Amino acid sequence: MARKRRPTRTELREGILQGDRIVLSKAITIIESQHPEDQALGASLLDDLLPHTGGSIRIGVTGVPGVGKSTFIEAFGMFLSQHGKKVAVLSIDPSSTISSGSILGDKSRMTELAQARNAYIRPSPTGMSLGGVAHATRETILLCEAAGYDTTIVETVGVGQSETMVKEMVDFFLLLMLAGGGDELQGIKRGIMEMADALVINKADGQNVDPAKHAAEAYRGALHLFPPKESGWTVPVSTCSSLEGRDIETIWQSILEYVDTTQGNGYFSLNRNEQVLSWFKDAARQRIIDELLGDRTIHQSLGQLEQRVADRQLSVRGALSMITKEAWLQH
Amino acid sequence: MARKRRPTRTELREGILQGDRIVLSKAITIIESQHPEDQALGASLLDDLLPHTGGSIRIGVTGVPGVGKSTFIEAFGMFLSQHGKKVAVLSIDPSSTISSGSILGDKSRMTELAQARNAYIRPSPTGMSLGGVAHATRETILLCEAAGYDTTIVETVGVGQSETMVKEMVDFFLLLMLAGGGDELQGIKRGIMEMADALVINKADGQNVDPAKHAAEAYRGALHLFPPKESGWTVPVSTCSSLEGRDIETIWQSILEYVDTTQGNGYFSLNRNEQVLSWFKDAARQRIIDELLGDRTIHQSLGQLEQRVADRQLSVRGALSMITKEAWLQH
Repeated sequence: MARKRRPTRTELREGILQGDRIVLSKAITIIESQHPEDQALGASLLDDLLPHTGGSIRIGVTGVPGVGKSTFIEAFGMFLSQHGKKVAVLSIDPSSTISSGSILGDKSRMTELAQARNAYIRPSPTGMSLGGVAHATRETILLCEAAGYDTTIVETVGVGQSETMVKEMVDFFLLLMLAGGGDELQGIKRGIMEMADALVINKADGQNVDPAKHAAEAYRGALHLFPPKESGWTVPVSTCSSLEGRDIETIWQSILEYVDTTQGNGYFSLNRNEQVLSWFKDAARQRIIDELLGDRTIHQSLGQLEQRVADRQLSVRGALSMITKEAWLQH
Repeated sequence: MARKRRPTRTELREGILQGDRIVLSKAITIIESQHPEDQALGASLLDDLLPHTGGSIRIGVTGVPGVGKSTFIEAFGMFLSQHGKKVAVLSIDPSSTISSGSILGDKSRMTELAQARNAYIRPSPTGMSLGGVAHATRETILLCEAAGYDTTIVETVGVGQSETMVKEMVDFFLLLMLAGGGDELQGIKRGIMEMADALVINKADGQNVDPAKHAAEAYRGALHLFPPKESGWTVPVSTCSSLEGRDIETIWQSILEYVDTTQGNGYFSLNRNEQVLSWFKDAARQRIIDELLGDRTIHQSLGQLEQRVADRQLSVRGALSMITKEAWLQH
């Protein structure tokens, strides 16, 4: 298959600003690419589009496998779409970095939303480290915003470190839960509850309505044990049925209230600034390392130290003490 | 309180090689210290002792809170001690890095073992990052080995990333479990089962004997679903009662068999080599970053880029593309 002509910076910029979904998809593929020309084009494009970004409410959705994330996002996305919102759905799926693609892509999981005129669904990039996926997803959010999407939903599959990564790129973090038998707090990783801006007990339908209400009660009690949030926000606990589309609006109202509260007290923009800075700082450290290790002499010096450690001639600490700026970081 | 005189490199080396526990404790305190003189002394000491390290079987013990790790380690350690082994017990406790000290130290949890002549118990260092704790614990293992301890047990409290860290510093990783009601696989973090070299159902005493046996059966079935281990080892599942000291010997026999198998097929030393190299590589990258950011010009250049990102003059990708070796890593 012949490589298609790479679109120009202007074509990409203008297409995205006009909300052209095909151009948007091409641009995302470019920022996901490791090809040096794509990388440079991606950097120019993102600099160009920067003034047009930031305009969406960024919502993260997490929960253990089986909690019904796709069904929820489909119902929630359809609700927003029917209310005139332009919704972009992205996902962070570390498993796709290992298997190079989930068995079912996101589009086949969200059949109705995938066909909605105001919705754009983009599955997790494949073949990247989890850090690379997070980086690409952050940039994809920016591209979607420049294309006019006013609501971004980032789904995480709830495995590994993906929740923390999503939390660090969204304004609002929603934790989906189930009414379990017995211990309601089972199966959730420690620390995820503390990250949530809303707890939603999903599958509150049929015989499950009462158990879901009781679970919500139990979580409300548990949340009282947590220290108050820096955002000044009190975490609401609600139930919903994604299947029947019930109580979806309540959740949207909570999110709007959250945005209102945190824009009022300054936390909203403070959090966004901290997120972008922390993203840059981490990526810059990684970049510095990559640049240095790309240097032949440094690469060799490090390799020699590694060999001496492997041969047990040097302790790790002894070898580390030889890495000094004076000795071999400058030459 | 006046700072005591720092012991000399020779005093430390000789004391440790003679198995002096007071000198060993002092040396561990020195390697945990951030003081530059302590750091340098620690590096020389570790280089000195390197030929005397590696002689213990390193065993990691993990399991969810409440599984009875301390009781197990006490029973297991007493068994080993009574069979002429010299046992060192260390712990990786990220909570102590936050609260600067668990409510109960390890010694008060293991009263009998703490008094055994052949045992040495050292709680997790406090006031460090989790990475710092792991680094110090790895070096503590080496110091204990130089002091003649032939069995090292590293306990993890089963929170955060501590299991992965312990897995990466031991030869054998033991997962303690309980016979639960219903779903036996609840509450264990994904990935921990895959790491285990043995599963032990603890608290198999009184009315719990039969449930424990059934749980062991269920786990044996579940483990068949896992791919074979690189070590060539088939993971045994057993029950034990730490309270009654029952079936502790079976576990020790499994460990000896594991050592025999993996020393035979070469995995034992391969794994140790990979562990030390991976430890050094990670620490070296951190060290390079720390050294570079200690440079005034680099620190300022990075600060300026951070400011432009924060002011939304530059995209993260645009700012990253300005970090090049030529432009500002050398000067």
